[in-house]
Amino acid sequence: MNVDLGNALAAVADPGLTQDDLDDLDERVESAHERIARGIDDEEFGYAALALPGQTDPAAIRAAVEPVADSETVLTVGIGGSALGARTLTTALTGDHGASHVLLDNVDPDHVDGVLGDLDLSTTAVNVVSKSGTTAETLSNFLVVREAMTAAGVDWTERTVFTTGGSGPLADLAAEHDLPTLPAPEGVPGRFSALSPIGLVPPAILDCDIEAVLDGGEAAAASLSPSLFDCPAYAYGAVAYELEERGASINVFMPYAERLEPFAEWFAQLWAESLGKDGRGQTPARALGATDQHSQLQLYRAGRHDKLVTLVRPQERPTVDVPTADADALAYLADADLGELLDTELQATEASLAAAGQPNVRIEIERMDAHSIGELLYEMEAACILAGELAAIETFTQPAVEWGKQAARDVLRDEKTEKTAAIEDKTELVVGSEQ
Amino acid sequence: MNVDLGNALAAVADPGLTQDDLDDLDERVESAHERIARGIDDEEFGYAALALPGQTDPAAIRAAVEPVADSETVLTVGIGGSALGARTLTTALTGDHGASHVLLDNVDPDHVDGVLGDLDLSTTAVNVVSKSGTTAETLSNFLVVREAMTAAGVDWTERTVFTTGGSGPLADLAAEHDLPTLPAPEGVPGRFSALSPIGLVPPAILDCDIEAVLDGGEAAAASLSPSLFDCPAYAYGAVAYELEERGASINVFMPYAERLEPFAEWFAQLWAESLGKDGRGQTPARALGATDQHSQLQLYRAGRHDKLVTLVRPQERPTVDVPTADADALAYLADADLGELLDTELQATEASLAAAGQPNVRIEIERMDAHSIGELLYEMEAACILAGELAAIETFTQPAVEWGKQAARDVLRDEKTEKTAAIEDKTELVVGSEQ
Repeated sequence: MNVDLGNALAAVADPGLTQDDLDDLDERVESAHERIARGIDDEEFGYAALALPGQTDPAAIRAAVEPVADSETVLTVGIGGSALGARTLTTALTGDHGASHVLLDNVDPDHVDGVLGDLDLSTTAVNVVSKSGTTAETLSNFLVVREAMTAAGVDWTERTVFTTGGSGPLADLAAEHDLPTLPAPEGVPGRFSALSPIGLVPPAILDCDIEAVLDGGEAAAASLSPSLFDCPAYAYGAVAYELEERGASINVFMPYAERLEPFAEWFAQLWAESLGKDGRGQTPARALGATDQHSQLQLYRAGRHDKLVTLVRPQERPTVDVPTADADALAYLADADLGELLDTELQATEASLAAAGQPNVRIEIERMDAHSIGELLYEMEAACILAGELAAIETFTQPAVEWGKQAARDVLRDEKTEKTAAIEDKTELVVGSEQ
Repeated sequence: MNVDLGNALAAVADPGLTQDDLDDLDERVESAHERIARGIDDEEFGYAALALPGQTDPAAIRAAVEPVADSETVLTVGIGGSALGARTLTTALTGDHGASHVLLDNVDPDHVDGVLGDLDLSTTAVNVVSKSGTTAETLSNFLVVREAMTAAGVDWTERTVFTTGGSGPLADLAAEHDLPTLPAPEGVPGRFSALSPIGLVPPAILDCDIEAVLDGGEAAAASLSPSLFDCPAYAYGAVAYELEERGASINVFMPYAERLEPFAEWFAQLWAESLGKDGRGQTPARALGATDQHSQLQLYRAGRHDKLVTLVRPQERPTVDVPTADADALAYLADADLGELLDTELQATEASLAAAGQPNVRIEIERMDAHSIGELLYEMEAACILAGELAAIETFTQPAVEWGKQAARDVLRDEKTEKTAAIEDKTELVVGSEQ
């Protein structure tokens, strides 16, 4: 992976960093790296994520999914970190945006109905993922899916794989029915678990090269070093952190590759849930190049100087020539190929942001393959952990989501609590005529 | 449509508005409404969008698409406003996220290859949309698709529909081959054109109720009135504007409905391209409830107070019961249905944001049907135009995207200009080892 920080320098952008700023940052990166390296060695909570590539056993995953390896479709029942890493990998590796890997990562009855109506459950592998084994959305959906399988005459125990922790309802059920079960890694929050069975089961079922994904992660692990000038992951994390300090409260994550669209969602969770605390944290905005040039770019150029735009691209792309057009107005497209057009648009966008003084960073991977994706996932995790160290926050927890979870449970249990009272006593000021 | 402003009041949230603030705003809404109403009556540039529901002729659309009405799949070749409205409508109305309406709204060779490899072009309707008829991405993709059709032995002139302006390469081609062609509306920027043939051709081919979509738009048009206390569209636009003035520089648009996922993208373009100018404009962040509670909510609650969270839901949903679980830990899910779970989570999230003083607004539509979607599209357009009036900006232009477009054209034409020099002389500071 390469990171080009040029358009984040003060000579180009505002906010931007001078060489002195970078040197100051680099000193802090050195001690943050020591902390991170110690955390990895001791497999401390959270830091343990960065040890996964060397620990995850792809052979155990392949063995566990063997009974469902003939499936045409994978249906993942999971939410948040239990779904996004797997979706990121299958889309990046197959180019497929949903046909072969379907997600139930929401409890929308309309959607669940539609998904189950479209699937042939007799040729579907059901991949249920919940570390605690108690996630309300996941368990509810699993119960609905299991009933649909039974109704369709499919033996659910023959087509289901669990990834879960060592105890809880899913672990109990797995033991009772002797189901193929993979371990959710210990000490690793969901958003950092893509390089474990949580992320790797669906690509394994679809026969992707999960070994190369892990190799890419190992290569990235070997690239961590104490200076941001030598380590792309830290270069990105440190500059994103420092730009936030100077006003870039938004991180626009904009890959120029359709296969990386789910990667932007994965990144958004990583960044938001890890760094969004103590009244700070960049808000991730997911974008896609070149498409969003026709949607968001007006704002990115002419709006507030409160954004870091992160552009991502593969250095190599397949060739698709543009046929010659019959119109003079399009003559400039002759001899072009689509990849050249896309890369030219990236460069033009980058330059147009720079010309407006809007900071941007370019991340490049070699090509869209398993090794590069493994590397990119790992490096973004390392970047995030570094940014968390620099901000002196608790990167690996997500305490603020508990309030709402508990409130929803209280309502569903018909209990009267302070939280259910807050819901009932909502301040209302309704404009409109529906009921 | 209903808009509940309760959690945007100063008694709940910071930033938040007092009754006095709302009264002051309301006076400004009155004169802004006069301006907008005059613009609609005179069909001025941009304002003309709000006259579309009464002008668009669904019978003409149905007649034009009749030759391809037997298609199993629609392939839309368009980008930005030429794609997002149509995608929004087909997903909202069919529940399908991509199988029956495929988009080529990017020039990624990898993706174009994949899409064309998967499609049976003999049963596909190709819907090409470009107002100018010269959009580089759209025309390039069209040329590639046309070649693929010919290679597959399909007569492209029998399976292609154009929506374009009165002149330009597409209009010329349409005349030459006598193709079914629909007019892009005059005086309406792409992002405001969902309720014209630009948005309605794909749902018409898929036999959705486009008449009801337009009826919903007409109902919304009739609901515009001079006070934000009576008009949901203006209530939303005015409060979003005023919260931005007070620090909510981000608008998190978070529908609790999978079918509205593309709607959030459509909204993001509408908001960003219309309001992102003169150093201002809320940055739209697209989210999805309940899924993103497990991804973004930590940040929304515990991060900066720089966000308005806009929650959207249908009041009615289909019923999908959760079967009884075998585990005590899940007993509270018994007797629940998925819709109840989802709505409870919305209320819990809303209350949890309010408890943290983070401003949020709830928008409700009656149900997920053609009438409600037409209404919602129109009301969000009106909200956006009102916000633009209050901010005294040029809502209907997008001047900042021209720099990059011109730069890309210059590069592809091998011309040496100031802009190509800016690309070549890019400031670089590369960390990493690729290349």
